[in-house]
Amino acid sequence: MMKKLAMGIDIGGTNTAFGLVDEDGNVIAESKISTDKYKFYDDYKPYIEALASAMKELIAAQEACELIGIGVGAPNANIHSGKIETPANLWRFEDCDDPRPDNIRIFDFVGDLSRYFAGVNVMITNDANAAAIGEMVFGNARGMKDFVMITLGTGLGSGIVSNGEMIYGHDGFAGEFGHIAVDSRQTGRQCGCGRRGCLEAYVSATGIKRTAFELMATMTCESSLRGIPFEKFEAKMLSEAAAKNDPIALEAFERTGRTLGLALADLMAITSPEAIILFGGLAYSGDLIMKPTFRYMEENMMSVFKGKVKLLMSGIQDKNVAILGGAALIWKKHLETVMENY
Amino acid sequence: MMKKLAMGIDIGGTNTAFGLVDEDGNVIAESKISTDKYKFYDDYKPYIEALASAMKELIAAQEACELIGIGVGAPNANIHSGKIETPANLWRFEDCDDPRPDNIRIFDFVGDLSRYFAGVNVMITNDANAAAIGEMVFGNARGMKDFVMITLGTGLGSGIVSNGEMIYGHDGFAGEFGHIAVDSRQTGRQCGCGRRGCLEAYVSATGIKRTAFELMATMTCESSLRGIPFEKFEAKMLSEAAAKNDPIALEAFERTGRTLGLALADLMAITSPEAIILFGGLAYSGDLIMKPTFRYMEENMMSVFKGKVKLLMSGIQDKNVAILGGAALIWKKHLETVMENY
Repeated sequence: MMKKLAMGIDIGGTNTAFGLVDEDGNVIAESKISTDKYKFYDDYKPYIEALASAMKELIAAQEACELIGIGVGAPNANIHSGKIETPANLWRFEDCDDPRPDNIRIFDFVGDLSRYFAGVNVMITNDANAAAIGEMVFGNARGMKDFVMITLGTGLGSGIVSNGEMIYGHDGFAGEFGHIAVDSRQTGRQCGCGRRGCLEAYVSATGIKRTAFELMATMTCESSLRGIPFEKFEAKMLSEAAAKNDPIALEAFERTGRTLGLALADLMAITSPEAIILFGGLAYSGDLIMKPTFRYMEENMMSVFKGKVKLLMSGIQDKNVAILGGAALIWKKHLETVMENY
Repeated sequence: MMKKLAMGIDIGGTNTAFGLVDEDGNVIAESKISTDKYKFYDDYKPYIEALASAMKELIAAQEACELIGIGVGAPNANIHSGKIETPANLWRFEDCDDPRPDNIRIFDFVGDLSRYFAGVNVMITNDANAAAIGEMVFGNARGMKDFVMITLGTGLGSGIVSNGEMIYGHDGFAGEFGHIAVDSRQTGRQCGCGRRGCLEAYVSATGIKRTAFELMATMTCESSLRGIPFEKFEAKMLSEAAAKNDPIALEAFERTGRTLGLALADLMAITSPEAIILFGGLAYSGDLIMKPTFRYMEENMMSVFKGKVKLLMSGIQDKNVAILGGAALIWKKHLETVMENY
């Protein structure tokens, strides 16, 4: 019998990673091409060609395998349309780097890649949703019907699963939990989405950095962080400083956990998940972020929900989650089809 | 052929209404018993007996009908357990009217009613979820897979449907949108749930009344509302005053719509529904509440969602929604079973 494998693809701003994943979540083989080399609008078609060619090479190197599908995680991807819609950092117009409303760019990724893989099922969704499906198929959400995945990277992404299904919403763009208001829409922090007061402007690698700089202005204590300019500052410096009891770093984690905990208490009231799973750079800081988040969440939720929800770290954090997420999209579909025909 | 009918039951604090509903949402026959007569904990068993007896009477009066199930909408009802858990205004302990945490009362409604109707499917859910299912089966959400029902009564209830399924959450208590924070948990308005700053303390019949009294303190203008004491004040007086251009009434609707619109803009980011449907007393005030709600929602949502969502009035508002909601729970299940066996 031929070994069934799903191809998972993760489109990042720097690289596009892809790999063949078996039913148990093992990445059998993987490779990558540069995304950055194809950064402008006119590079999109050559990019697809290069990607398809590299994928075919990887598949050809396998012995006796059957490709059951290709699953893709990408920013601004829509599962309903199969398209990537106006991604901020991909295939920009050469004369306009600013993602303004009139800077609309639509890429029919599923349609274009499918041309190179006749008869193969190709699916795409945004990266946070792909991570959630990866967690459901291969990680800590196995067997769960209701959970929330929060990805804490440069921004804050989310994938919300209810009744065993991803919530994509009517238009395919649901799960933008990073863009609920946690501060005034008039006076809160500016967000990359063009508004103010969004959760991700406070809770993300960028958000906690902004909080640290606010605290340097507010507090008078000594701190090793005061020697680092904003441009050079990375969120992981806060974990390192907090390990040495730096008061600004500790307070930055406390405030970030407070803001996230309060927001999650509200999310509990809406979808009442079994677990909330944190993933990404900021989640790596462990107890520093998990403890205050859990405490403020529990303190502020409606009493009917108290003591019920688990706050977990991702179970695929250390693995190649980006590739696993895309592949899980295919495996989930495949297993459902098998079950239906059983 | 016998006519298939579903029994819908609505348990309110004053009355329990019930009726037989056909596939098209026609209430063929209906009746009610007093709930208020059975207000204490020890009255629960006699209440079930009286209800079952009255239901049997109604069924017996029909010619050639088949009862396909009994669906119930009740406060604090849990579809997973079939139980009504510590309802504030039903079957209280005689010596303690205060719904404190230690005042836990659990009623196995589905189990207890089923004893009188052997072999009949009995289902229960909370009233807002029942209203949402009523809207999906018989009202303005027919054919929609993703929508949100907001019920504006004494409080604010919600039923959220994604992928064609009600979001009940892991514990069955999801959809408490009335209890997200729209103001400080420390200094916001007190809410019936024991916390502060909840949406329903601002947006509900009670919430808009509280806003009107706040405005009487803030504004100096003349208003016919200034002659009415708090205890005698009803939300519908605001619609009447607004129709006469009373400045306090108009501002109360503006602020209520603003608070609701901002909250709905955030809900859009989470579940991205096709429509948001308003139901209940405050929704009857029509444009007074719909217009500011829609305007603030659109102004404050993430640009990817703008111009996509419909804000609708309930399509079963004028009908016996309480009975229809319960019956719809049964009809939805029945039609799904028919489809599966097709």
